[in-house]
Amino acid sequence: MSRSLEGIRVVDLSHVLAAPTCTMFLADLGAEVIHIEPAHGDDAREFGPYVGDKRDKNLSAYFISLNRNKKSMVLDLKQEKGRQILRELIKVSDVVVENFRPTTMKKLGFDWPDIQKINPRAIYCSICGFGHDSLPQYAARPAYDMVAQAYSGIMSITGPEGGPPCRVGSSVGDIVAGHQATIGIMAALWHREKSGRGQYVDCAMVDGLFAVLENAVVRYTVTGSVPAPLGGAHPSITPFQGFKTKDGSWFIAAIGNDNLWAKYCKVIEREDMIDHPLFKTNPLRTEHRSELITILDKEMAKKTTAEWCEIFDKAELPYSPINNIKQIADDPHIAHRKMLVDIDQPRAGRMRIVGSPIYLSETPGEVYAPAPLLGEHSEWILTELLGYEADEIEIFKNENIINKDF
Amino acid sequence: MSRSLEGIRVVDLSHVLAAPTCTMFLADLGAEVIHIEPAHGDDAREFGPYVGDKRDKNLSAYFISLNRNKKSMVLDLKQEKGRQILRELIKVSDVVVENFRPTTMKKLGFDWPDIQKINPRAIYCSICGFGHDSLPQYAARPAYDMVAQAYSGIMSITGPEGGPPCRVGSSVGDIVAGHQATIGIMAALWHREKSGRGQYVDCAMVDGLFAVLENAVVRYTVTGSVPAPLGGAHPSITPFQGFKTKDGSWFIAAIGNDNLWAKYCKVIEREDMIDHPLFKTNPLRTEHRSELITILDKEMAKKTTAEWCEIFDKAELPYSPINNIKQIADDPHIAHRKMLVDIDQPRAGRMRIVGSPIYLSETPGEVYAPAPLLGEHSEWILTELLGYEADEIEIFKNENIINKDF
Repeated sequence: MSRSLEGIRVVDLSHVLAAPTCTMFLADLGAEVIHIEPAHGDDAREFGPYVGDKRDKNLSAYFISLNRNKKSMVLDLKQEKGRQILRELIKVSDVVVENFRPTTMKKLGFDWPDIQKINPRAIYCSICGFGHDSLPQYAARPAYDMVAQAYSGIMSITGPEGGPPCRVGSSVGDIVAGHQATIGIMAALWHREKSGRGQYVDCAMVDGLFAVLENAVVRYTVTGSVPAPLGGAHPSITPFQGFKTKDGSWFIAAIGNDNLWAKYCKVIEREDMIDHPLFKTNPLRTEHRSELITILDKEMAKKTTAEWCEIFDKAELPYSPINNIKQIADDPHIAHRKMLVDIDQPRAGRMRIVGSPIYLSETPGEVYAPAPLLGEHSEWILTELLGYEADEIEIFKNENIINKDF
Repeated sequence: MSRSLEGIRVVDLSHVLAAPTCTMFLADLGAEVIHIEPAHGDDAREFGPYVGDKRDKNLSAYFISLNRNKKSMVLDLKQEKGRQILRELIKVSDVVVENFRPTTMKKLGFDWPDIQKINPRAIYCSICGFGHDSLPQYAARPAYDMVAQAYSGIMSITGPEGGPPCRVGSSVGDIVAGHQATIGIMAALWHREKSGRGQYVDCAMVDGLFAVLENAVVRYTVTGSVPAPLGGAHPSITPFQGFKTKDGSWFIAAIGNDNLWAKYCKVIEREDMIDHPLFKTNPLRTEHRSELITILDKEMAKKTTAEWCEIFDKAELPYSPINNIKQIADDPHIAHRKMLVDIDQPRAGRMRIVGSPIYLSETPGEVYAPAPLLGEHSEWILTELLGYEADEIEIFKNENIINKDF
């Protein structure tokens, strides 16, 4: 079976998470992604957990899961010969992706005007906190995911009601920007078919999150009100939230309308509440949320999460257990959808990583190769893609332009 | 300036958020998106806030912000003539997107085999909670964003340390799936250039979120440990979290390594802590997080967020205020990046909605048209795209196949 992006080559000057998420999508869809790493490797190779609990650049499960399907080339961009090799590689590639600080590519001689000169068909995508095109006070600011989450406003609407703002538990600042970078690159590839020219995709993590704040933004621009965190509850539907059950785990009851409310009152054996003057309609229930939830907290604590799941299922009421990572990872749904896949990873052995959510009938995103060892493909790339001879490669090794071994 | 996806036509059978997010990206990039609505309109038209606080299907700011750039056609799919018109429209379109429950399209006669017969070049994308290809027990389960957040595990790692699991403050279950649907559709469009055939993109909100849990999943598959919420803190870097400052607002100090730690101790005037035996390295600081944070909470409460911002900026320490929605919406960065744009919305007047984060140099995503009034383009589509005459359209109106007015 062929893959969607077969024939597209990506020079991946990325590290850790935002740009690697983007190039993971591209690689899963069949692009040839060449991850250029410094001699010490992508910083993500330093992040645990390690397979076998052994601190080793080739055993970081974090790195492996993000870099499956990619190739790795070690290249010293501080040396002119290293930069020359990079120029040659960009000449024969379609896309360049990076997530350095805004000034780094310019210093190296690879900002957008440079790349256009090297290869006018190349698409260049940068991901950083505030964008390359940003106000001077933001240009040099280092932006971790945490900074993007805090700056964008998403933390201010996440967390318990009245409590401290909370970070979203996964690095959505990096990850959402990685998704949007993928969309931008694919749009640029599509447009290149007509124009014959590449273009520049300038992703900002702060913008990426700001764009997904959803109703919170128009609520402010239209009404002036400033949304606050609501814990596990829905701002305008009640009850539509988590309850702690008898076994101490959590259960979501999602009672979206008044018909469901009547059914729900029956299953919790509180039919007296169906037409209660404070609770009979959704606006009333939302208005009297705290009184209502006090009552429901007691009712929902009378049975276990498993018991509620069965009862809600039979009654066709919308619900969900609040799964922890073990529960969802072991769920038959995840197995059925191939969202966890086993790979044979060199040196690490058989291990289990996340599959691709891009579920296409003919050319799905998929995990078809393990992650590369640090510098595994340096020689192959020099020989096969750039036409260097063995003696020249020997010189590059001796001068530490590329890695000696891997 | 031309747009990336000019010439692509999308039949958008979507409602509320997940699929509308996808078709918003496609429309922002220049695709012609025809939002097919029932006579009572997309449910999102019932969601506030309303412009002028007036409950009206054409004044929902929530709907307007998600549906800018799209066209609206009212079509009664319960009538065979309505379905016939839909078949004709699919014949002249490239993409069909929907987020009904899994069985709805089949009942209407528009599941994937049907669509292939109507137009073998059409790409069909569905978005639902557990995917169309799912185990029987999940197939009919209604999945709100809240259900996807709870089921996928993301809530179990979001919230205060030791506290209740919290919902991510925006509907990331819908929104992440909407991003992935866009990537899937663009991959299918790209592949169609070679194969000549469309394909089926089957997005599941639960999978979409599971795929972005990041390190949490490999931490479980590789070590067996089950991650829990950490509030505003980073799991393995300390201090890297929010602190409440003198004015009661929150401030993130992101002290990613030991050099930054030394600088940080200086700016908080606690140089005594630089080489403190419990705190001098990041692993030590993470191990003794609670003792350390107790001390830092006191130090950080001595100045306002604005004062800390200035101090950290000068010291080149990574930081961020935790902005609320007003603060970020009014920030000059958002204005500079055109992430809030003014539109002239029929009947609503001038209003401000979120811009496109797809920042391309030549063919950027952009807001170029307001959201459609309910059924605004029904006649135009019948006339211009499907070639119907005025007298036939009159009959459709009289039989309530399309709307009489708008």
